[in-house]
Amino acid sequence: MDKIDVTASSHSYKIFIGENIRFQLQSFLTKSYSSILIISDEVVAPLYIDDLRSNFTKGKLFHTILPSGEQTKSIETFYSVHTDAINAGLDRNSLIIALGGGVVGDLAGFVAATYMRGIDYIQVPTTILAHDSSVGGKVAINHELGKNLIGSFYPPRAVVYDVETLQSLSAREIRSGYAELVKEALISDQEFFNTLLRTDIQQVTAEELQAHLSLGIKIKATIVQEDEKESGVRMYLNLGHTLGHALEAEYGYGTLTHGEAVAIGLLFALQVSENLFSKQIAYDSLFEWIKENNYPLKLQQFDEHALLNKMKSDKKTVNSKIKMVLLDDIGSPLVKELSDQEILDALQSFNRKLVTE
Amino acid sequence: MDKIDVTASSHSYKIFIGENIRFQLQSFLTKSYSSILIISDEVVAPLYIDDLRSNFTKGKLFHTILPSGEQTKSIETFYSVHTDAINAGLDRNSLIIALGGGVVGDLAGFVAATYMRGIDYIQVPTTILAHDSSVGGKVAINHELGKNLIGSFYPPRAVVYDVETLQSLSAREIRSGYAELVKEALISDQEFFNTLLRTDIQQVTAEELQAHLSLGIKIKATIVQEDEKESGVRMYLNLGHTLGHALEAEYGYGTLTHGEAVAIGLLFALQVSENLFSKQIAYDSLFEWIKENNYPLKLQQFDEHALLNKMKSDKKTVNSKIKMVLLDDIGSPLVKELSDQEILDALQSFNRKLVTE
Repeated sequence: MDKIDVTASSHSYKIFIGENIRFQLQSFLTKSYSSILIISDEVVAPLYIDDLRSNFTKGKLFHTILPSGEQTKSIETFYSVHTDAINAGLDRNSLIIALGGGVVGDLAGFVAATYMRGIDYIQVPTTILAHDSSVGGKVAINHELGKNLIGSFYPPRAVVYDVETLQSLSAREIRSGYAELVKEALISDQEFFNTLLRTDIQQVTAEELQAHLSLGIKIKATIVQEDEKESGVRMYLNLGHTLGHALEAEYGYGTLTHGEAVAIGLLFALQVSENLFSKQIAYDSLFEWIKENNYPLKLQQFDEHALLNKMKSDKKTVNSKIKMVLLDDIGSPLVKELSDQEILDALQSFNRKLVTE
Repeated sequence: MDKIDVTASSHSYKIFIGENIRFQLQSFLTKSYSSILIISDEVVAPLYIDDLRSNFTKGKLFHTILPSGEQTKSIETFYSVHTDAINAGLDRNSLIIALGGGVVGDLAGFVAATYMRGIDYIQVPTTILAHDSSVGGKVAINHELGKNLIGSFYPPRAVVYDVETLQSLSAREIRSGYAELVKEALISDQEFFNTLLRTDIQQVTAEELQAHLSLGIKIKATIVQEDEKESGVRMYLNLGHTLGHALEAEYGYGTLTHGEAVAIGLLFALQVSENLFSKQIAYDSLFEWIKENNYPLKLQQFDEHALLNKMKSDKKTVNSKIKMVLLDDIGSPLVKELSDQEILDALQSFNRKLVTE
């Protein structure tokens, strides 16, 4: 089992990564709780909720099962989970456990952040993609006008990552998760990036996956420790997300997975970076890897103006100017403000490239 | 002008109390903002919003006017103010100004706490009651099952208290505000309590009011500095609120004002304290003052079991046991867990007392 420490401003917590550790939850808790509410979704709950419940023989144990999918991160679901928590009698000394992917983690974390002004929660992620969202304390729900616009910085008390639960993932979910691992490699670790480029993600072994997750999480943890509230280096984790979020919003949440959209966003960021610094960085090699691993690239030609507008409503935007994370080399990210025209030009050339490749 | 410093875990801020200081807002801001959203209600906005707007000649300035009253602290209004903020183009470098009483302050503060995971806000309270809610960083909305159940600890960047705005308050609003001042005196300052007992609150001068507010706020600020997240002494500020909140919920928000309910709750806490410690503390003198100042005491006889249930859903309740703040003397608060039967007995005797007085 791997163990990674994260120091947040309010408290420190540990990330545990290993096989079958979902049966050892008690040993990862640092205090006892008056009651526990497990929040999961209809896909994950039938697979693992009984395993989780088996950790707690005594005390008050409740669960809430939500519909699966991005639409669950709504204000309505947020409110109804609060209702469930109140009806279950959760108090300030209760614990919420988020069992599932990023949607469940973000929603359950935001409920924990706001229930009676904040109670403890732990993350039990069951997707590769959630390695990203479960670390660092960003919790949120969506607004109809934009993703994650309503939320908090509210770190968990622990992250318990049982890699065995990842064996039930679909090819699409594996692709989605690996896009964030590629992102982490691109912003800080050339060797890790090379390793990933050699990886056929449909053939990955449990050992390789655990190793990749540990590397990715360490990169993420180092960054969020240094800049919890995203006023500096944490912005780098947004590589690929400016266009990624816009694509998700434009195509409707659910058509493209988050990771699929980020993969396209990473390519776009590399294209802009290579143009700006007039050198090759990794566009070609990443493009090949993305194609080989069957990421969706042949989007119907997109509307550049619509995407530009979506990009401008991103949370990172200040004074209506788009700030993009770029690379002047692998492992060397920077933030650059781009004019609307620069973005439009880049989108047009990217659009042509995707269509003709 | 009085100035009081508060050190919160995330940052320090100042409370300014004085006449006409609503025209000096710029001087209380410690940085410049990309845009500003003033949130107020339909009663306060016509009186003071132009004064506030006149502070800002440059930049992007927006406002949102909400219905007045407790029902504004709803999930629907919370979401619609987020919509307004997004449509106004607020970014992470924007400021929210809460202009109004506790309802506006709590709601606007919770929007600030959760907009793009948190932006700056300042409180410009326009009621006496809001001296309590505007200091200490508690922000929240109501759930249909209980008051303030959804919220955060999220301190403002400044509190700007223009006592001139208090001259437009109704007799009822003055009563409501003074109940919290009495509470602060009871938990920590015998002399302040004696001063308040000598005060006819309908005849209070601007100088007296500013002095009372400064004393009350200093007590509150000292306590929230010591215990920001309410794990210890901050609980003392809940004196009178266990029954107070239950009465508000039972009679419907709006029938009794918050302060009126707290005044009754303070009497109840004193009755329980005097019984427990077998001595007189201040029940009789407070009862007289409350009667003289026309607080509503002749409630139709209340249902003790219903009130007990409401008290048990309070946020301070842990493991379904009611914890009440009591006094073993003025200035000497303590927290005591009481059984359901003890509460019921006390409520019955209190009920009889109120009816027969």
